[in-house]
Amino acid sequence: MSSWNPSQYSSIFAHITLSDISQARTTGSNESPVLEVTSEARSKGYDSVCLPLTTDAWKKRWTNMCLVPSSPGDDKKKRESRRESKLMSRDFSAEKKAEAWREKPVFEANEVTMTRLGEFTCIAALNFYNNRLDEAESVTAIISEWLELDTDDDWIRLDTEIVSQTRLGLFSDNDVSLRQALHQELSYASYLNIQTAILPAPRNRQYTACYARAVNACLQSSPFMNLAIRLPIYDPSAAQDPLSPASPSSGRPLLPSPKIQRTSSLSSSLPPTPRLVVSQSSQNTSHPKTLEEQIDASWEIWDLIRSLCDYNPRLSLALDLTPPLPNSPSVLGKWSAEAVRYIFLPASAFIANAKGYPVLPKPTQAFIRDSITHRPNIILSGVSSGIHSKGSEVAYSQYIRHLERTSTVVQAAEKSGTVENFAQGYQDYLQAPLQPLMDNLQSITYQTFEQDPVKYKNYEEAVYKALSEWHEDGRIVICVAGAGRGPLVARCLSAIQRSKRDAFIYAVEKNPNAFVTLQGRQRNEWKDKVKLLFGDMRMIELPEQVDILVSELLGSFGDNELSPECLDGAMRLLKSDGISIPSSYTAHLAPLSSSKLYNEAKSTKDDKNLETPYVVMFQAVNLLSGNGGGPSGQCGPRIQECWEFEHPRKETVLDPQGLPLTNSHNARFAKLRFHIPHAGVLHGLAGYFEAVLYRNIGLSIHPHRKDQISKDMLSWFPLFFPFKEPLYLPSNSELQVSIWRLTNQRQVWYEWHAESFLYGLGSDLGLTSAPSTPPIPTPNVGAPIATSSPLIDAVDIAPERRSSVVLDTLLPGRALVKIGHTSLHNAGGRSSWIGL
Amino acid sequence: MSSWNPSQYSSIFAHITLSDISQARTTGSNESPVLEVTSEARSKGYDSVCLPLTTDAWKKRWTNMCLVPSSPGDDKKKRESRRESKLMSRDFSAEKKAEAWREKPVFEANEVTMTRLGEFTCIAALNFYNNRLDEAESVTAIISEWLELDTDDDWIRLDTEIVSQTRLGLFSDNDVSLRQALHQELSYASYLNIQTAILPAPRNRQYTACYARAVNACLQSSPFMNLAIRLPIYDPSAAQDPLSPASPSSGRPLLPSPKIQRTSSLSSSLPPTPRLVVSQSSQNTSHPKTLEEQIDASWEIWDLIRSLCDYNPRLSLALDLTPPLPNSPSVLGKWSAEAVRYIFLPASAFIANAKGYPVLPKPTQAFIRDSITHRPNIILSGVSSGIHSKGSEVAYSQYIRHLERTSTVVQAAEKSGTVENFAQGYQDYLQAPLQPLMDNLQSITYQTFEQDPVKYKNYEEAVYKALSEWHEDGRIVICVAGAGRGPLVARCLSAIQRSKRDAFIYAVEKNPNAFVTLQGRQRNEWKDKVKLLFGDMRMIELPEQVDILVSELLGSFGDNELSPECLDGAMRLLKSDGISIPSSYTAHLAPLSSSKLYNEAKSTKDDKNLETPYVVMFQAVNLLSGNGGGPSGQCGPRIQECWEFEHPRKETVLDPQGLPLTNSHNARFAKLRFHIPHAGVLHGLAGYFEAVLYRNIGLSIHPHRKDQISKDMLSWFPLFFPFKEPLYLPSNSELQVSIWRLTNQRQVWYEWHAESFLYGLGSDLGLTSAPSTPPIPTPNVGAPIATSSPLIDAVDIAPERRSSVVLDTLLPGRALVKIGHTSLHNAGGRSSWIGL
Repeated sequence: MSSWNPSQYSSIFAHITLSDISQARTTGSNESPVLEVTSEARSKGYDSVCLPLTTDAWKKRWTNMCLVPSSPGDDKKKRESRRESKLMSRDFSAEKKAEAWREKPVFEANEVTMTRLGEFTCIAALNFYNNRLDEAESVTAIISEWLELDTDDDWIRLDTEIVSQTRLGLFSDNDVSLRQALHQELSYASYLNIQTAILPAPRNRQYTACYARAVNACLQSSPFMNLAIRLPIYDPSAAQDPLSPASPSSGRPLLPSPKIQRTSSLSSSLPPTPRLVVSQSSQNTSHPKTLEEQIDASWEIWDLIRSLCDYNPRLSLALDLTPPLPNSPSVLGKWSAEAVRYIFLPASAFIANAKGYPVLPKPTQAFIRDSITHRPNIILSGVSSGIHSKGSEVAYSQYIRHLERTSTVVQAAEKSGTVENFAQGYQDYLQAPLQPLMDNLQSITYQTFEQDPVKYKNYEEAVYKALSEWHEDGRIVICVAGAGRGPLVARCLSAIQRSKRDAFIYAVEKNPNAFVTLQGRQRNEWKDKVKLLFGDMRMIELPEQVDILVSELLGSFGDNELSPECLDGAMRLLKSDGISIPSSYTAHLAPLSSSKLYNEAKSTKDDKNLETPYVVMFQAVNLLSGNGGGPSGQCGPRIQECWEFEHPRKETVLDPQGLPLTNSHNARFAKLRFHIPHAGVLHGLAGYFEAVLYRNIGLSIHPHRKDQISKDMLSWFPLFFPFKEPLYLPSNSELQVSIWRLTNQRQVWYEWHAESFLYGLGSDLGLTSAPSTPPIPTPNVGAPIATSSPLIDAVDIAPERRSSVVLDTLLPGRALVKIGHTSLHNAGGRSSWIGL
Repeated sequence: MSSWNPSQYSSIFAHITLSDISQARTTGSNESPVLEVTSEARSKGYDSVCLPLTTDAWKKRWTNMCLVPSSPGDDKKKRESRRESKLMSRDFSAEKKAEAWREKPVFEANEVTMTRLGEFTCIAALNFYNNRLDEAESVTAIISEWLELDTDDDWIRLDTEIVSQTRLGLFSDNDVSLRQALHQELSYASYLNIQTAILPAPRNRQYTACYARAVNACLQSSPFMNLAIRLPIYDPSAAQDPLSPASPSSGRPLLPSPKIQRTSSLSSSLPPTPRLVVSQSSQNTSHPKTLEEQIDASWEIWDLIRSLCDYNPRLSLALDLTPPLPNSPSVLGKWSAEAVRYIFLPASAFIANAKGYPVLPKPTQAFIRDSITHRPNIILSGVSSGIHSKGSEVAYSQYIRHLERTSTVVQAAEKSGTVENFAQGYQDYLQAPLQPLMDNLQSITYQTFEQDPVKYKNYEEAVYKALSEWHEDGRIVICVAGAGRGPLVARCLSAIQRSKRDAFIYAVEKNPNAFVTLQGRQRNEWKDKVKLLFGDMRMIELPEQVDILVSELLGSFGDNELSPECLDGAMRLLKSDGISIPSSYTAHLAPLSSSKLYNEAKSTKDDKNLETPYVVMFQAVNLLSGNGGGPSGQCGPRIQECWEFEHPRKETVLDPQGLPLTNSHNARFAKLRFHIPHAGVLHGLAGYFEAVLYRNIGLSIHPHRKDQISKDMLSWFPLFFPFKEPLYLPSNSELQVSIWRLTNQRQVWYEWHAESFLYGLGSDLGLTSAPSTPPIPTPNVGAPIATSSPLIDAVDIAPERRSSVVLDTLLPGRALVKIGHTSLHNAGGRSSWIGL
């Protein structure tokens, strides 16, 4: 999406209304009204504008053609399709016009806001554009807000949405495909080279599938247009079950009729902003929704739309913050995993501070600050109406800029030494995990990781502590297993110096290229304090067994770069009472939602990409799990430990060379149970590790503990285990995740799987198996059979055990009900394994 | 699977036990014991045998290697992995053996039942096999039933299942991959050229994912082996929530530990048959399961296994009918949609009739009769033990044969004139629907449909009735629109003759090839009673307008062969008070489960195949919907009407040629709501039609009404709308199906989608947005700001409307909770449209 402001901050948009345009028309300037208002917006510091595509003239014509005029006093049927009343009115004139329009959908010039195109020099914009500017340049178009893609009147919906579409290449130019209002508007917006259009908000949960289908058809038929769905963050008036009619005024029976519904229950004035009237008390069927549930319901509408559009990357959200936000960050966190490209912020969402200036309430402040990470376009609306006593229109955008500058993400990104700063540009970027055992790393890779100040500081501290506490006097022998370009060797030497112990270092490295660097450093720096040995730590022989074995073989998930296998092979180098640094490490998982990561992983259309874990710096991500407990009371915490590896391990059967006979002891399995407090879509699992280097010194990328253990450590981004198909998880459900670490003599791989459960109600269906009256023998089917034949039926006495089962089980109650599962991922290690 | 009996009936297998084999060993025959028992089984009339692959010697060795010997008096820990107790016992000798075995898994000769292979002439089998027979010939192997693929002891599970697998082509022959017990047995069975192995029953719902993963690994590593999972139709002892431990004797805490579980809770004697002890009263957490719920739970285990194995066609079920069946056909119907290749039927499932002969209880009878359609292999077990006083061993299989002969399916298939007889070989075969408007049909296609006696009889009846009731005297003009090879013309002539009316027929046909046939029939049969006209009914001009327009343009879903569009084009040929035969037709849908159809549709790995509706004669199919109502009370019936088309339609705007300006009036939409009483997997939708030809004469393939309206009509099989991804539907859930008929000037297509809902419990999470105590102003982040700045926060007063929302919504309650949805199918008509 283009904008006047290419900075790394959010763009701030002015929301231009039809009335703004018509007022501009009266100024007598020689520019067009639209150019007038847009240049005025630029002069006020806005980055861009969004404005309606059509005028009231179009609404009037469409209404006359397609709707029956409202008759006063009949509230329930104010709007009705022309087609519906045809048989009664026998007035074909409007319907004939509509059919002619449906066949050849053309706007009249006064029905659209923008018509002037082509060469035009705008003085105010000269600094951005050198040669030309037309009215639609970098404008975001707002599609007619009165279009109801989800009305329950089928014929109105047909005239609203695209009924059909041109299939490119299939037809000659003579083919005129039927395109109705929405398609007509998008088609005109495309003609104007508008990049993004904002669609009217979905209003009717009962017909969201229709809305979604129409949007999907538009994405297919307008292959270069970005569509943003305007969505109020919640709609208090829709506080019912998803299948109940949304409007309390509906007079229709609730049972869906198999025939097309022909009456409309919506009021004739379609509010462009969400309905804020709280009218739950007038509803009867189910309990009124809490604010959190309403936000979940709003998200559910979005989820349905984008799912039906198959996560199309051209589809995004214009999140409407008109309703006041709750103080519950957890329910709002879900939006960080969604494609929120616009935030619609009306002046009414601001409150006055003590001095009368417009500021946002705390929850909205926090939400905006968190959203800044994703650089949404913020649309300010109604800010020229002066509803706050102090500060001009400019005060609103200045306040937004203030929130940006003071957000933790922006501050962290601007501060050197933070992960956020280090990882600029790597957010949500999928990287294949390193396989340092199979591949020899490049020097640049070593260099990147050697930049990490925290990791090596902690290693030095661990070695220092181990040396200081070493139980014997005299010479201590250290082996650095996997020395790379030497950072651990240098830290060990420093630790030796600090500890004032007599110690010697063997440095083992199997990468022949890195070994060149090591030789240089030995010659120049380390001299005879270090002995270099070239070879694989699983095969190499040392002149003596060592006291301390130091290695840095950990991956984002702990064991995923085969540290357990390598150290199994190196343990023969360590004395039986020796120390391994690290001494143990654990792998941790949490369920994750991220439409962005899901789209990235599936983007190549190759299933293999959804069977491989990735290293990712998470950003547009939401962890779905809550703090444990859950409906069953048996769920673990938000992030759960899978398994642990300890070194040295003593209980393995070894061959004469000191190597394990098989690798089966390094297989692992974990079954984790998570509480899912808010509805969400499972796209994958987030993987983290935590390692104990020595005693209380460790390394951690566990989100809740990393700051205590190894703050600002840069070397590891988390691991992302994707799922091929998104799994919908309802609010207050439970998720059981199974993950395996599997191995043979040559490979290690992970398989993962998830099942979801909900506390449902026990079946009220009764039981049909217990005959309460004596059964009546039924006649045999087929030919008559002699009475002594073995084929004659027994008199049908229910066996004892059967009825006892029945009697025991007729109690009603609740049960944890299975509601879905993923497929088994990376089954059999087909696509992702790590060579030993 | 090969069998000795190639007939179209089920094969009956004898279940041979280790004790049968060891008794045979003592007969002194010069054949091997296994050959002795198998030839004896053949002589008793069995079609084949299944027998255990391994002996007790193997069980003993494996137990000694991998388990700790049980210590009397310690019930809770009878079995424990060797590895577990290593640290305590420090006895490595068994573990060393186990590691050696894990590295090189080889049976000793006395550990398997079959060893003799190669050239061997068996006299008793000469009539079947001319040259050779070995012990394993056409035997189904039963894998060691004591293998626990789902035990909660990780190390035992590892020694049981395959830990790893050989990747064909990746390694040299020297690579010895680790293969443990299951893989070792399957590998040996493969070596014997055994085609199918029956795996031990899953026992532990908590670890079903582990069982499934192991099975999937076996399917990958044994690429030619068929695997059948033995599954008791229900397990009364597992009457709990799916996530609770299955065994009531478990002493473990319920909270899953992130570390590996190391204690085993299973008893040491693993019953080969399911546990029938009803012990629900000793459980506390949730309500005990009803028998129906237990059957659903058993199916859920199967569903999880086959889903994790990605619907592998080599995976099937050996359904174990040891537990007595309930009298509830609806809960048992689900098994008809599954790959039940074996039915395990012990003598204990039989009861004695009045004469003492073994017969089955009514529910089992009905189940077996219904299952016959799928020709399962029936395994009779324990039938030689003489538990029934009358009838020898032979009585059991004779009784099964009797059930077969008297089943309605077999009887219908053997009776000519029935659909079942006509459709032999077409069951579950996916056919692309005809497109008679776009393609000119072949003569053979016409011939097939002309065989239908009922359809043309009803057409003749409708024309006869219309003629008889015609309101004017004098000449009546009929047009047969789409005459094909002439069957409708002939029936119209016959109706004219019967009605004694003066009538004349125009016969219109656009297929030039069929028109040749028509000309022949006119010359030879019809003479001047019929005028033939060549051309498309939408373009052709007749010499006069007609009184009755007869057409047969219906597809399986009514309008899917474009009858509405063709008749729109032909209506100008009909007088304004004329009659169309048919006068209307409706489309009907029901949600459907069928692993077979799902596998068929996805078999080519081309997504397009899952976006196209198919014509299918349903067999291995289960309709998931119940009779309406549902938790919300708002669900429609089992099969629901989508929409209707009527002819002539009068309310359309027409152009001067009498044709509609656009086709938008033929667009349709239906939203249907189904109750799903029993857990199932949605694989697609079943589509049916019903047509009114004239007054009360019609055509119908609606399963509940076809027999009243057009019994034994052969021309239409139902339509199958597939879903790309199976959707799990819990018991007592609701399914909302949306389906669209969409159109442009040149094409018609369907799109379909489904959403599932469950009555869950309202969130108990409370609401965090209503501060009950006055909020404390928090300090600003960032630099201090002057007190008059617009950037100072407001004192955080919750707006009025916010708290009013909160107060209204804090009531607890139940709600219909969304739990999943399919993707939008055939979105944009990409793959499946019908040309106009």
